[in-house]
Amino acid sequence: MKSGEKLDVGEIYGINVLGKATYDSPLRLSKKRGDDIFNFVKEDDKILQDISLREFKKCLADNKEPFAMERAGPREKIYFNVKKTKAAIVTCGGLCPGINNVIRSLVMGLTYFYGVKEILGVRYGFEGLNPAYGHGFVDLTPAFVKDIHQFGGTILGSSRGGQDVGVMVDTLYENGVDLLFTIGGDGTLKGADAIGEEIKKRGVDISVIGIPKTIDNDVNLIDKTFGFETAYHVANPIIRDAHNEATGAYNGIAIVKLMGRDSGFIAASAAISMSVVNFVLVPEMHFELEGENGFLEVLKKRLDTKHHAVIVVAEGAGQNLFKKDKKEQETDASGNIKHGDIGLLLKTEIAEYFKKNDRQVTIKYIDPSYIIRSAPANPGDSIFCNGLAYHAVHGAMTGRTRFVVGRVNNRYVYLPISAVTNKRKKINMEGGFWYTVLESTGQPFEMR
Amino acid sequence: MKSGEKLDVGEIYGINVLGKATYDSPLRLSKKRGDDIFNFVKEDDKILQDISLREFKKCLADNKEPFAMERAGPREKIYFNVKKTKAAIVTCGGLCPGINNVIRSLVMGLTYFYGVKEILGVRYGFEGLNPAYGHGFVDLTPAFVKDIHQFGGTILGSSRGGQDVGVMVDTLYENGVDLLFTIGGDGTLKGADAIGEEIKKRGVDISVIGIPKTIDNDVNLIDKTFGFETAYHVANPIIRDAHNEATGAYNGIAIVKLMGRDSGFIAASAAISMSVVNFVLVPEMHFELEGENGFLEVLKKRLDTKHHAVIVVAEGAGQNLFKKDKKEQETDASGNIKHGDIGLLLKTEIAEYFKKNDRQVTIKYIDPSYIIRSAPANPGDSIFCNGLAYHAVHGAMTGRTRFVVGRVNNRYVYLPISAVTNKRKKINMEGGFWYTVLESTGQPFEMR
Amino acid sequence: MKSGEKLDVGEIYGINVLGKATYDSPLRLSKKRGDDIFNFVKEDDKILQDISLREFKKCLADNKEPFAMERAGPREKIYFNVKKTKAAIVTCGGLCPGINNVIRSLVMGLTYFYGVKEILGVRYGFEGLNPAYGHGFVDLTPAFVKDIHQFGGTILGSSRGGQDVGVMVDTLYENGVDLLFTIGGDGTLKGADAIGEEIKKRGVDISVIGIPKTIDNDVNLIDKTFGFETAYHVANPIIRDAHNEATGAYNGIAIVKLMGRDSGFIAASAAISMSVVNFVLVPEMHFELEGENGFLEVLKKRLDTKHHAVIVVAEGAGQNLFKKDKKEQETDASGNIKHGDIGLLLKTEIAEYFKKNDRQVTIKYIDPSYIIRSAPANPGDSIFCNGLAYHAVHGAMTGRTRFVVGRVNNRYVYLPISAVTNKRKKINMEGGFWYTVLESTGQPFEMR
Amino acid sequence: MKSGEKLDVGEIYGINVLGKATYDSPLRLSKKRGDDIFNFVKEDDKILQDISLREFKKCLADNKEPFAMERAGPREKIYFNVKKTKAAIVTCGGLCPGINNVIRSLVMGLTYFYGVKEILGVRYGFEGLNPAYGHGFVDLTPAFVKDIHQFGGTILGSSRGGQDVGVMVDTLYENGVDLLFTIGGDGTLKGADAIGEEIKKRGVDISVIGIPKTIDNDVNLIDKTFGFETAYHVANPIIRDAHNEATGAYNGIAIVKLMGRDSGFIAASAAISMSVVNFVLVPEMHFELEGENGFLEVLKKRLDTKHHAVIVVAEGAGQNLFKKDKKEQETDASGNIKHGDIGLLLKTEIAEYFKKNDRQVTIKYIDPSYIIRSAPANPGDSIFCNGLAYHAVHGAMTGRTRFVVGRVNNRYVYLPISAVTNKRKKINMEGGFWYTVLESTGQPFEMR
Repeated sequence: MKSGEKLDVGEIYGINVLGKATYDSPLRLSKKRGDDIFNFVKEDDKILQDISLREFKKCLADNKEPFAMERAGPREKIYFNVKKTKAAIVTCGGLCPGINNVIRSLVMGLTYFYGVKEILGVRYGFEGLNPAYGHGFVDLTPAFVKDIHQFGGTILGSSRGGQDVGVMVDTLYENGVDLLFTIGGDGTLKGADAIGEEIKKRGVDISVIGIPKTIDNDVNLIDKTFGFETAYHVANPIIRDAHNEATGAYNGIAIVKLMGRDSGFIAASAAISMSVVNFVLVPEMHFELEGENGFLEVLKKRLDTKHHAVIVVAEGAGQNLFKKDKKEQETDASGNIKHGDIGLLLKTEIAEYFKKNDRQVTIKYIDPSYIIRSAPANPGDSIFCNGLAYHAVHGAMTGRTRFVVGRVNNRYVYLPISAVTNKRKKINMEGGFWYTVLESTGQPFEMR
Repeated sequence: MKSGEKLDVGEIYGINVLGKATYDSPLRLSKKRGDDIFNFVKEDDKILQDISLREFKKCLADNKEPFAMERAGPREKIYFNVKKTKAAIVTCGGLCPGINNVIRSLVMGLTYFYGVKEILGVRYGFEGLNPAYGHGFVDLTPAFVKDIHQFGGTILGSSRGGQDVGVMVDTLYENGVDLLFTIGGDGTLKGADAIGEEIKKRGVDISVIGIPKTIDNDVNLIDKTFGFETAYHVANPIIRDAHNEATGAYNGIAIVKLMGRDSGFIAASAAISMSVVNFVLVPEMHFELEGENGFLEVLKKRLDTKHHAVIVVAEGAGQNLFKKDKKEQETDASGNIKHGDIGLLLKTEIAEYFKKNDRQVTIKYIDPSYIIRSAPANPGDSIFCNGLAYHAVHGAMTGRTRFVVGRVNNRYVYLPISAVTNKRKKINMEGGFWYTVLESTGQPFEMR
Repeated sequence: MKSGEKLDVGEIYGINVLGKATYDSPLRLSKKRGDDIFNFVKEDDKILQDISLREFKKCLADNKEPFAMERAGPREKIYFNVKKTKAAIVTCGGLCPGINNVIRSLVMGLTYFYGVKEILGVRYGFEGLNPAYGHGFVDLTPAFVKDIHQFGGTILGSSRGGQDVGVMVDTLYENGVDLLFTIGGDGTLKGADAIGEEIKKRGVDISVIGIPKTIDNDVNLIDKTFGFETAYHVANPIIRDAHNEATGAYNGIAIVKLMGRDSGFIAASAAISMSVVNFVLVPEMHFELEGENGFLEVLKKRLDTKHHAVIVVAEGAGQNLFKKDKKEQETDASGNIKHGDIGLLLKTEIAEYFKKNDRQVTIKYIDPSYIIRSAPANPGDSIFCNGLAYHAVHGAMTGRTRFVVGRVNNRYVYLPISAVTNKRKKINMEGGFWYTVLESTGQPFEMR
Repeated sequence: MKSGEKLDVGEIYGINVLGKATYDSPLRLSKKRGDDIFNFVKEDDKILQDISLREFKKCLADNKEPFAMERAGPREKIYFNVKKTKAAIVTCGGLCPGINNVIRSLVMGLTYFYGVKEILGVRYGFEGLNPAYGHGFVDLTPAFVKDIHQFGGTILGSSRGGQDVGVMVDTLYENGVDLLFTIGGDGTLKGADAIGEEIKKRGVDISVIGIPKTIDNDVNLIDKTFGFETAYHVANPIIRDAHNEATGAYNGIAIVKLMGRDSGFIAASAAISMSVVNFVLVPEMHFELEGENGFLEVLKKRLDTKHHAVIVVAEGAGQNLFKKDKKEQETDASGNIKHGDIGLLLKTEIAEYFKKNDRQVTIKYIDPSYIIRSAPANPGDSIFCNGLAYHAVHGAMTGRTRFVVGRVNNRYVYLPISAVTNKRKKINMEGGFWYTVLESTGQPFEMR
């Protein structure tokens, strides 16, 4: 590859900055190896996305630099004057394990790493940035957040949907906020990006940082989102006990519906974490109920041999089985399409089918969604939330804006918000993860 | 009190026996105090039911012997010849934590205490005693049941409803069963009593023992049923996290529906075990939704002050709020009346009410019933199941029949099946337990 | 029995009062049955201690009133003027699950039931009542204690040992304290009683209330102490996994040492809650290591048959195996005799014995004491702590002093401190509970 | 890079094979993309180890192919005739969560993926391959292993240390074993490699597969070993409650010793998963107790400000603090150097130091090692164990031998045993992970 040649990747993954970082970081880190002291991350420190030898050779052959992402971490120079920096934190959308951990670690990091003195807690999502709601702010201090990591939910409260971008930027500006940390899903991140865009237009110095929050783990490019691990950990004993329901009756069938609007990561992970599941149905797969190879026939064969079955279904699975016109218009306040209830549909269709086929079955339908999403973060997610928050703080102080912090190939990276919101991550039906699901459950590649 | 005077209690609580116990117990127990070896229980060892000083004085004044129940435990003389005794175990009705513990301890007790060599596991409830179903038996040995106490559900499977009593007795007789242990609820125990009646008619020597199983804890006279403690223990973190749902939104309301068809013990216990609950609604109370002192108005006041509320409702609560004619005919296979779904009704009515009253509320409805009933027994219930099973074994060997083992005033006792099935235990709305619920939640005595 | 005849029980269990209760209770309770509103408890409402029919008949024959205890609960008349009442709470001795629950419910009860405005949290046990330590007080409000029930430990801190009684009473008096709630074990309760005695001498109006705290569950007369249930619940999976250690090696032996200085309730309960234990050794039993029927020989037989063994030992067991002169003098700051470490002794002796007997064994020694005592209260104990605290509040307001609240025969009662501190509760080696332990483990009645 | 040029990596990571794989795989997988069916993994499918852009550029500049590892997964051609293949599984060394999960998934995979009919379970580690011990084999079938994933420990039993390689190969050969799966740590893997070497010498057709088991997570090159995640998850609440011990006394100090002989991954991960820890001491760091910047002085400053401290220490930390000559000779049966007990040393030194410095402190020392290693696998490890076992089965069938399956950069790979046993993985004291530990605890970079 010739030096100086233009690369694809730089443009795609280039992160916006408010301006040149000129202050010395207050962190007493090192700039050399071998002294047992962590080094400031250099600006050219990047992580490859595709890590196959094949891609390496392809780039070599094509004379193309591979896609790479900025490694997250503290920089030697920062943009904000720590003596005057003021931060705000907002949490939006549905609950997800770990939100309080992120809030706590943002507060601890801002306070103890950089000496930030004032951090506003925004109440009830973007509503809290609209004075019309009168929610007010909470003063977030280390003493206030000390124990919150042991609780699920969000101490700030949340809400769905957006607010007027101009109003929100007014609020930020009027309250002297320099850094806005937004913890939320796809819609929230798009909203944060819009706020960043408006800030840019106005030429003010406010950095907008996103910490992706989706229990479904469907954020493009990044390994996993916080809360996802806790989700399938909480689902694990529920599946174990659903198996008790299935075996507790002759031809017992337990259906467990788990979260997963567009992606089946929770359903699939929960199922392979508790090896009693016989069928996993996810949004990424196309299956039919009827027909010789359809799901109901496959289920019948299972029951005739084993006399019980456990089915784990993601909420967004099997949407082809609903009549289009019915669901078309409905969306929730976050703009998500409201799905037909696949759990209830399965329950009904299975009951009818076996009635028709003269087999007495006992069906138990279990929907633990609220139980899962409101749980406290498990130890793995607790570590992860700490890491996300600390890296978000470091990134924010450099003047980067409209970026998210995430984990790719096991490393923390910074990515532009737009890079992760342009499409959703899905299970690759031809990939190793899904194949493990099939190996574990024994279900066929296709049911249609 | 004059000696020889006829007492009320003897007749009510007299337990049927197959005949005189003539064999020496194989247990090497003691008959004297002070040797650090457990003594055989004597036939006149009885426990008072009402333990107030007031009742004592009343009996004294009335010259009446107080109600007392047979203390459970091994007797010096037994009825069955242990060399030839054969037992069977059947589990009926819905799942409940601890069934496998009871099965395991019955098997261990029969085998190791009395040397019983053969124990049949009846499959899928009373169906398994009807050869028409072709379910067959499982051979229950210590090796087979060794680890089952660590799992929820029932390894034998269960079913609802009865079978022809004559057919079942035929099956027992033809298979040489001497002892039938029935683990089940109200309907099952009545069925067991009917089997005992038929056995008596036929003059055969089969003892029928009941181990009351109802997660609702609504068995008359006895302190608690197995599985109940686990039930509210499993519900506890679910309520903790429901609180996260309630506080996570402005005017957030979380409704948790728990088991409790006729009695609210699970709902009330779960609520006072996790002090975040604001309202507990149980079948024993009469409440109205509408009106100045109705539930909706009380809830509104709560929201206007605190902006969130957690409601725990037993499934059988508020049945007065449903139109009578609708629910009248519906019963399940066990003969239980199908209740109107109070959880969904509350959700709907609350939503409508606040819409009418111009308050934006967010309602989360959580129904963890299957998650609770299929869980493994907790340590407390594990101890309890061991105790019930061991005492059932000892009672069975004496030739007692048509009796249950239970715990009254913290002691194990034997009671005739009929004594516990003639009515259901309910929370006393004027008692100390319910008052503790009110103290903990702060809800008013009356909402109507 | 002739009326007016002097009874034994009245003197033993009579509770001291500061004076006649003259204020109307602010609680809006009822005085009649049938209105679904809890009734004030009447002064003659008492609970029998011995509830056997045999005792009933014996009292009848002896013309003796049975032992009975005051039923706990709110009274119609109270002693303190709620507008001016000030309370203090102190926690002493070792940690125990549930302390924070008791603190929280005391604060909630005092505040919301009776409108008490000021509650002092005493820091670090009785040290906090000695100004020389300079610990100061914490202001206990509902907002401050709202979430503490979800944490183990004590938010007030604790310490062992007493302080000068005069100094402590001075502190109470100077700070205007009317009610002193002491949460602690045997030594603490005796200290509280001494404080009460000094208060009486001085003729001041301070009520001293004890809430017995001993994880060992060895308080005389009362069913159970708070924290005990949690203790064996936390020990349960530890024993389950100790079994994995035992079976994981050829002739594997796992020794789990649990709390129980003078009484083996935790060890015994934990063992029967997880049916994998082969030997339970408690302080109440006398066993020898050596000899034909000694423990080591019995253990050898077990290993030769099954090739693994799980032993649960209470810390106070087998003290006869230590040389007297060594342990005689040592006591801890609470005045408890320091025991020889039976766990380590067993480990050493077993190793030596099997070495001598040419058997290779693998011994794993597990001591989870701190893990257990610092855990948060489980749901059962949470309910119990609420109940204890609420009843303590009601009792305190009546002017009763130098009393404890406890549970006897499943009812909350008030007892004089002296009644529960004069001796310790122990497992009855001839009773049903210990027999269940033997039934569950299969260990012999005697090993000596 | 010129084609055909010799690469470093090929030799290092080349995996031994028994011979050319000639049988068609019985798996019905795909060879093309886009059909929603998993594709056989191709032999040139490899994963980069260093995934930084910098390394990419360096390889480019140096004309060097980067280090890459074989992607694990099913191949189109296999070496063994599935109709006659016989497998054996052996588990060695200390317990670790997940062993039973691996056993179960090996059995399921061999049976259901490839139709292997006979699988021998080797009892008690390598001892079981030495007939002199007389341990015999267990017949591993799907029915036998069905539920074992829910239990900790190893159903096969284990032992430490090796056996004569010739004898073990004799046993394998005489029993017709084709595939030997060894689950164990460093010593076990070296033993497995020696077995493989001996097999090669003899020219027999037995494949030896390693599944690295070390709870310490210190296997060279690979992301994580199974059981490690469970380890810090189980440690998490223990640390939470150790904090209760620390705050429960004035100047309370809780010391929690966790596993980590040469690497501090468990201690560090547990500490950042529960943000109450003030000091983490690991083997990779050099710290001193004495001196102005020594640990004791730093601890004193902490206590003087906050009056409590939580210390998490890995068992192998601070070995410089022990006198060399004492520990030199001692090793355990696995050949591991026996460490001085740093936990007890800290306890003693801290006590002495504060006594000298006139501060009353209360020290609680907690060692939960056996509780952690014998726990059942958590959901994350359960998934991981499934993945490892399935990929081990696929690799084994291809005739690869003397290899391990592991996870590198989030992908399953195959590596020669020798590649992972030549050195141990340690925490990089200058890396991001350790920096997060410092950020979370606030402890200084250096304490010496």
